[in-house]
Amino acid sequence: MTQTYDSNNIFAKILRGEAPCSKVWEDDVSLAFLDVMPRAEGHTLVIPKVPARNLFDIAPDDLARFMPSVQTVARAVRAGMAAEGVAIQQFNEEAGGQQVFHLHFHILPRWTGVAVRPPGGPFQNAEALRPHAEKIRAAFAAL
Amino acid sequence: MTQTYDSNNIFAKILRGEAPCSKVWEDDVSLAFLDVMPRAEGHTLVIPKVPARNLFDIAPDDLARFMPSVQTVARAVRAGMAAEGVAIQQFNEEAGGQQVFHLHFHILPRWTGVAVRPPGGPFQNAEALRPHAEKIRAAFAAL
Repeated sequence: MTQTYDSNNIFAKILRGEAPCSKVWEDDVSLAFLDVMPRAEGHTLVIPKVPARNLFDIAPDDLARFMPSVQTVARAVRAGMAAEGVAIQQFNEEAGGQQVFHLHFHILPRWTGVAVRPPGGPFQNAEALRPHAEKIRAAFAAL
Repeated sequence: MTQTYDSNNIFAKILRGEAPCSKVWEDDVSLAFLDVMPRAEGHTLVIPKVPARNLFDIAPDDLARFMPSVQTVARAVRAGMAAEGVAIQQFNEEAGGQQVFHLHFHILPRWTGVAVRPPGGPFQNAEALRPHAEKIRAAFAAL
């Protein structure tokens, strides 16, 4: 049932430096950058550097090494965006909501009374995302 | 900003055997059981055995040890429920959608054309959940 990994997906291109992103964090096992169709201000994606289609396709050891990065990025997003809460979402296969077939965790900052916007919202370019990227980048130093 | 852990939360009681659950899986580090207000048929929760309020409150090593269980349970839910996809959700703090303050990952089986139901839906008792619990339990043996 699980499909194979396609190394031409957009996140693979970002990892190879062949496509741009609004990067907020990188370490040995992960890269984090802002979603270009944010469902909340500061909506961030965290991806592992190993090729993995989704949660079903990553070695358990690689998943274990990767998840502390998700936690770290969630902390920085919360701090940088002054969020009151954070929702994590991770979608597997098209029926599960997955649109890019490289494993990614969505980090959605939340505030009381502010709804998450529906998926597929308008594209935001690097200039529009810059203020949020800068806030989140700065937050890592203060964690 | 992070609050402390309240050992009287319902999932702590389930872990201590003081409250029932429709269990589908247990290992050294995790317990999985059906959500009593399922947003999809077979909606399953996976929780770590260590006390942790949410993603911000668990030691990175404990998170690393726990996540392969989330992956395993997601595989069993997919197989047992014959799901075409799986959505993972994890909520932190009330503004982030968290209602029980013990770290938990939602495993939502998905099928094309079947929407996820809104949160806070009707309670389902153990008898109503039994058919799904049995399917998911049986799936672990075949993973």
